[in-house]
Amino acid sequence: MRDFLPAEKAHRERILGIIRKSYRAHGFDEIETPVVEDSDRLHAGLGGDNEKLAYAVLKRGLTADDLRTATDPIKLADLGLRYDLTVPLARFYASHRAELPTVFRAIQIAPVWRAERPQKGRYRQFVQCDIDVIGEPGPLAEVELITATAATLASLGIADATIRINDRRILHALLASLDVPTESFDRALIVIDKEDKIGVAGVIAELGELGLGHPARTAVTLQALGTLDRDGWALLDAPPAWLDHDAYAELLAIRQAVGSRARLVFSPNLVRGMGYYTGPIFEVAHPTLGYSLGGGGRYDGMIGRFLGTDVPAAGFSLGFERLVDLVELPKEERADATALVHDPTVAPATLLALQAALIASGRRVRLERKPRNMAPLLAQLAASGFAEYAVVTADATLASLEFRRIG
Amino acid sequence: MRDFLPAEKAHRERILGIIRKSYRAHGFDEIETPVVEDSDRLHAGLGGDNEKLAYAVLKRGLTADDLRTATDPIKLADLGLRYDLTVPLARFYASHRAELPTVFRAIQIAPVWRAERPQKGRYRQFVQCDIDVIGEPGPLAEVELITATAATLASLGIADATIRINDRRILHALLASLDVPTESFDRALIVIDKEDKIGVAGVIAELGELGLGHPARTAVTLQALGTLDRDGWALLDAPPAWLDHDAYAELLAIRQAVGSRARLVFSPNLVRGMGYYTGPIFEVAHPTLGYSLGGGGRYDGMIGRFLGTDVPAAGFSLGFERLVDLVELPKEERADATALVHDPTVAPATLLALQAALIASGRRVRLERKPRNMAPLLAQLAASGFAEYAVVTADATLASLEFRRIG
Repeated sequence: MRDFLPAEKAHRERILGIIRKSYRAHGFDEIETPVVEDSDRLHAGLGGDNEKLAYAVLKRGLTADDLRTATDPIKLADLGLRYDLTVPLARFYASHRAELPTVFRAIQIAPVWRAERPQKGRYRQFVQCDIDVIGEPGPLAEVELITATAATLASLGIADATIRINDRRILHALLASLDVPTESFDRALIVIDKEDKIGVAGVIAELGELGLGHPARTAVTLQALGTLDRDGWALLDAPPAWLDHDAYAELLAIRQAVGSRARLVFSPNLVRGMGYYTGPIFEVAHPTLGYSLGGGGRYDGMIGRFLGTDVPAAGFSLGFERLVDLVELPKEERADATALVHDPTVAPATLLALQAALIASGRRVRLERKPRNMAPLLAQLAASGFAEYAVVTADATLASLEFRRIG
Repeated sequence: MRDFLPAEKAHRERILGIIRKSYRAHGFDEIETPVVEDSDRLHAGLGGDNEKLAYAVLKRGLTADDLRTATDPIKLADLGLRYDLTVPLARFYASHRAELPTVFRAIQIAPVWRAERPQKGRYRQFVQCDIDVIGEPGPLAEVELITATAATLASLGIADATIRINDRRILHALLASLDVPTESFDRALIVIDKEDKIGVAGVIAELGELGLGHPARTAVTLQALGTLDRDGWALLDAPPAWLDHDAYAELLAIRQAVGSRARLVFSPNLVRGMGYYTGPIFEVAHPTLGYSLGGGGRYDGMIGRFLGTDVPAAGFSLGFERLVDLVELPKEERADATALVHDPTVAPATLLALQAALIASGRRVRLERKPRNMAPLLAQLAASGFAEYAVVTADATLASLEFRRIG
């Protein structure tokens, strides 16, 4: 977990402001949930592998007896830090449904925690930017999610992202056509999901080792799909017999509605890790990055787990930490930041009056003691975004201040 | 801990934006630290009573053996949720001193957690807005903190707040003059701190019961001070013999420099709970509230606990949750939020094109399916801040849309 110093924090806040503004412009509303959720809820099977990575919060008031008789550490915890924003959203929606619009478009921009080994680009505390559409069963939800995400990336200066799309029903129909039994779909999808790392040949070999799928047909079909990664829509031009027709029609409808507003590529080997997806799934690929910038999909069964009634839902999550590294924003206009450099002869009341007058005129003002050598101070000020300074003397007035540019 | 629905979340974000902007204008820089800190650091004796309220995070990978042999639940935790922003700031400064300005002015706006019984106005997750000046030994730090805080409150429309000020050295000199031994100062201060609740007579009685202070002199002195609560500066006009002269001079300097920029009242019975204060202390009182809106003070010894070298420091914290309840912002200009109401005959591509065009012109646009009865939808839109809507037909163009005002 990391500290953020002023320059980095300012960069992060500027990017968050752009994302927030873009999502709001697309009709989404921001909400917030507590960082901890009930332990039972975090471990209800909806978080996939992330459940194992949840930080657990110890119950308060435990006695030595409680420890002695406990068999499983998790029993000593009643709360946990959230590992994603989807489980909290489902719980939120179930709690507040009556107060929310029929179709609820949520923004969540907030940190999540996973007890992973830190590595480059992976952190134990990191921010996710999620949008979700709850209550809309048709592909309009997916269209809105994809359009809003693509527009947001564009507003961050990321114009060359591609959004890969697939549908869980297409993957299931594919597996059924290869004679993979329904109860083994999840195991088979885990293998297919590794194609990025082990290649099509690796996937075919591993499915064979696991005895999943008719070997010859699996090899032929997956090899054919493997060649489509860059332009999967060709598959839909001459759809194979096994293709799920509803899903197929929906992908075409999404593609048509999105039009040129996003570079949408049909990727029949796209899996997405989470078990809760039920329909279209998507992922943001970037030409120069080895990893995705975000992803999402439809998860119609999940809200029902908390509410009792099924409510259709779909979401798209951007990985903020990856965006932060990627996005270069134009330098902020710095002309409004001024340092007042003073020595002990200047009365604090004089300084404060000058500061207040300059702030009232719209400036950002920092007071700095005059050092023997100005160079390090000026370098520091420049790094903090200060464009000018004025040396204050004991009898200074606003009119007498001489502003000098820094750098 | 609470969920925040769209209207409440928007209100909170607007207030945070105003606070952030005001503090930045006063030359402070925002930083961020992780929500968890090492357990040892949270329990180093700097958090006072709050240490007992820290949520503890269970170590990962504990075995049944670890549980059986553990004697104290806290030994099973290596991390904890922060209970304030001061301990993390001290740790932050000690880690990053070389990268920070000589005088570092920090903004921290972030949640903290305390495992308290929830009651009105108290929450287990709540946001604090802290500013701190690190590296400035003189009263200029206090002057800047008080001025920036008063200006921030004013920018939130809170013009009638009073800032009570005192100095730990004055309290210590007072206690010494009453023959309270140095090692009992903290116990005596806890009693004096209760004056709000038990009155001056209650304080005198309780000090007597505890055998703290010369009984007759304690009664006379505290009764005299008790009458000064509304205008303590009178005490400084004719300072009593026991008054600490350095502290006294400093308070006068602060008062003079702050001038009319804050309503500053010297309150010789002000204690502030935390043990780490070493000099001036302050608290924001509000005429209609039974509790303070925030407080702070000088804590010169604390950074040294992490850094090894003492560094002067002072801070001022605003309790955000109390401000949220108090502040009424003018309604946001809503003319830029439009709903596009459509039925199934309208192609998604048409809708998306209209939305994109309106967003490009600076509007916030939400798509809504046309219901049989428009009234509930319009009420919902009005509550979400939407000022107008247009019914979209299959052949609609941007020029043909008719915008109707809501409400």
